[in-house]
Amino acid sequence: MKPEAAYDELIRRSREETLLASCADVLEWDEETCLPRGGVAYRSEQLALLAGLLHDRGADPRLGELLDLLEASFLSADPESAAAVNIREIRRAYERERRLPRRLVEEIARVTALAQQAWADARDAGEYERFRPWLERIVRLAREEAEAVGYTDTPYDALLEDYEPGVTTREVARLFEDLRRELVPLVQAASPSGRRRTAVLRREYPVDRQRLFAEAVAAAIGFDLDRGRIDTAAHPFCTALGPGDCRITTRFAARDFPGGFFTVLHEVGHALYEQGLDSAHYGTPMGEPASLGLHESQSRLWENLVGRSAGFWRQFFPRARAVFHEALHDVKQDAFVAALNQVEPSLIRIGADEVTYNLHILIRFELEQALLADDLRPADLPEAWNSAYRATLGLTPANDRDGCLQDGHWGEGLIGYFPTYTLGNVYAAQLFAAAGRAIGDLDAQFGRGDFSGLLGWLREQVHAHGRRLTAARLIARATGAPPDWRPLVESLRTRYGESVGL
Amino acid sequence: MKPEAAYDELIRRSREETLLASCADVLEWDEETCLPRGGVAYRSEQLALLAGLLHDRGADPRLGELLDLLEASFLSADPESAAAVNIREIRRAYERERRLPRRLVEEIARVTALAQQAWADARDAGEYERFRPWLERIVRLAREEAEAVGYTDTPYDALLEDYEPGVTTREVARLFEDLRRELVPLVQAASPSGRRRTAVLRREYPVDRQRLFAEAVAAAIGFDLDRGRIDTAAHPFCTALGPGDCRITTRFAARDFPGGFFTVLHEVGHALYEQGLDSAHYGTPMGEPASLGLHESQSRLWENLVGRSAGFWRQFFPRARAVFHEALHDVKQDAFVAALNQVEPSLIRIGADEVTYNLHILIRFELEQALLADDLRPADLPEAWNSAYRATLGLTPANDRDGCLQDGHWGEGLIGYFPTYTLGNVYAAQLFAAAGRAIGDLDAQFGRGDFSGLLGWLREQVHAHGRRLTAARLIARATGAPPDWRPLVESLRTRYGESVGL
Repeated sequence: MKPEAAYDELIRRSREETLLASCADVLEWDEETCLPRGGVAYRSEQLALLAGLLHDRGADPRLGELLDLLEASFLSADPESAAAVNIREIRRAYERERRLPRRLVEEIARVTALAQQAWADARDAGEYERFRPWLERIVRLAREEAEAVGYTDTPYDALLEDYEPGVTTREVARLFEDLRRELVPLVQAASPSGRRRTAVLRREYPVDRQRLFAEAVAAAIGFDLDRGRIDTAAHPFCTALGPGDCRITTRFAARDFPGGFFTVLHEVGHALYEQGLDSAHYGTPMGEPASLGLHESQSRLWENLVGRSAGFWRQFFPRARAVFHEALHDVKQDAFVAALNQVEPSLIRIGADEVTYNLHILIRFELEQALLADDLRPADLPEAWNSAYRATLGLTPANDRDGCLQDGHWGEGLIGYFPTYTLGNVYAAQLFAAAGRAIGDLDAQFGRGDFSGLLGWLREQVHAHGRRLTAARLIARATGAPPDWRPLVESLRTRYGESVGL
Repeated sequence: MKPEAAYDELIRRSREETLLASCADVLEWDEETCLPRGGVAYRSEQLALLAGLLHDRGADPRLGELLDLLEASFLSADPESAAAVNIREIRRAYERERRLPRRLVEEIARVTALAQQAWADARDAGEYERFRPWLERIVRLAREEAEAVGYTDTPYDALLEDYEPGVTTREVARLFEDLRRELVPLVQAASPSGRRRTAVLRREYPVDRQRLFAEAVAAAIGFDLDRGRIDTAAHPFCTALGPGDCRITTRFAARDFPGGFFTVLHEVGHALYEQGLDSAHYGTPMGEPASLGLHESQSRLWENLVGRSAGFWRQFFPRARAVFHEALHDVKQDAFVAALNQVEPSLIRIGADEVTYNLHILIRFELEQALLADDLRPADLPEAWNSAYRATLGLTPANDRDGCLQDGHWGEGLIGYFPTYTLGNVYAAQLFAAAGRAIGDLDAQFGRGDFSGLLGWLREQVHAHGRRLTAARLIARATGAPPDWRPLVESLRTRYGESVGL
């Protein structure tokens, strides 16, 4: 067989596997947004079937044959060429997939589909016990997966590698040590002592108008609604169901303007990455996001570095005041922006201020490592969660809804995923600084409603590359320096420390 | 291999094929309700892939082996036992499927997914030309399908057989001859000469309240919203995505109360059939609807024989008047019911009165036969459509939106489907009369808000049987007489003829 023919077959198989995977993605999107309660059990069977079919393709020994042949032929090729990247990354996925037993893959799909509903029910009722047995099953399955895939240091590495290739648990732990040391005092210093400026954000913002306002802003910053949509769901997320179909979900509450609005900006950040991938490469690694950390860098960048900036609100505050006249008619722009940037430790990750945010992640990172290592039993999670919040943020959740039931990730089987949020914050700070150096005064551009400079730079430096580089190498190339927490802390210190004299 | 083991394998394969088919159904539901424009092309590829995988299973020679073995062993079994029914019906499906080339199956899935969007666009724009090339492809594919499947009399038989097993084109043509003879004079006699009572239905009925009202009525007559949902879409339909997930779609317009409301009742009638199937048999023929004609009998029965009755509105008119106070505060119940039962030839099938309705179907039946036989070119369809409407109903559509673009069926590849609507009306009249004989005064029960007697009878006589019997045999058993148009005409004459002295 000629290498050209082998490569064509490899690509055809990759595209077809993506096509089938995207069918499962449609079913998962539907489960989160539309599925009636009575359909949950059957949905889990549908997803298990598709997971099994996908596994058969992903672990097909024919892939190994093609890869063996191609690796020999492409040895001298430019390692950053599309072909070399696709071969390397398909090998990586194949080596993982072929180590997983089909039974395990199906079981994970089935259990997580059911566990999501159990989590949503438990969260609604504030009853952790309803979710506990599912978490136990999920932790057991995650352990099985780690053992099957293999690791050198700790089982957590095997899970993390799937989300953030090339990054180890040890590196993440060291990163969190540094961040804890820097951020805990910054949170304390920046938190208000009596002065609370955020009351204005808890006024009445009618949900229908929030939706329209958020959609308008999403479109203005570049989200293409002909190639996507925005829905409401219990758990906000972004999913690409095809090259022209990227969907985000959010949730709105009348008395929590930032909760809904920044969720939309966050998910739109993800969507801009997906919509910025090269659609000619769709269905191959060159058309896929490089890592979840890099994905989060995009969401966090738009949510915080753009969405909480003074320039952004010079553009959008007049419109916000017109739309939410009752809530904002007596509010000045500066006071509004200050409220959006208030540092104040709170219980809910998704509504956390930028400075506190990574401490929420740190807590989850430590807890899920303990769960995986069996140092923490799921039955003891609520207590461990609450005591970690007390120790790190000085707060204790009044109930599990505001505590260990707040995030849907574990119910979806996503263990090892949380650290990518903090890696995203680290990358985002570096990318945003580099973009500013490259294309000039971003704040002024935002003030004019011009987001195309930033988006264009991100498309060129990040989105267009697909999986050509690991996240670490892409960051080094785009910003001139390897991943480093210092620009993040510096950015937070500049923006939040100044106001309190640090 | 023992027959028991062979039967178990057959059933396992049947259930798995249904499971995979239901994944495609989710994607199709999503296409009609949610899919952004940019996702249409990829969706067609997803559906083509799933259609190919389904075909591989449905035409797997292993099925033939199992069926050969089982047919020999079950020769003496009760032909109405679950096993005998499943073997018989899986054989029927297998014989059809194995005659179809995989390429054709994939092509039909791909083309119809794209054609639906083209139809929706053409309809929105009122430009038939946008749809014409797609209709040409679909007619060619339908012809190919008919040739592959085979037929004794006419290609149309091969398509009809898929929707209404055991019924021939010749029988349907004879039925329409009889109905034309009976209905054309009845329409003329019952149509208003000057007196129009329907103006009240064109008042302002706010869409949001229509939705709430329709949902409340749907629940009251038995639609289980924990096992289903109601959405809006360009094309109203009902689809079962699993044993606990039956979804209907509808469309509302503020100045067309019956348009939205009776669409919901119609689709709810379909949904009650699906929700009444025996879920223990789900995924096998014993858990499937017997025919589309029988399916339509359920939708038309609830839409018309229940939903336009005096008893029904004794129960719901007070609620309607409270909800639509502006539109109905000066309207008497009798006048409202009379308006809902106004006979008046119109251009749109879906809004047609009961008497005219079958003439709309007759026109489509004749046109699609002509298209399939190449006696009519798709380019000439608008003219042929308009002249048929002129000849049959005395009306000419002002545009193709109100003419040949009004229905989405052909865009979905559904040629040979329309006659099942009229068969449904025929069956419905017989079933409704038999239910009345069996369980007493239905109108009085409806007036008390009690629909459980009728629903229970339908569940027992129709829904619970799955594909145990053909539609014709089921009707004979449930009503004491084989399918016959006379009860339909009698019912129409009683309800509509009396008022005009026929």
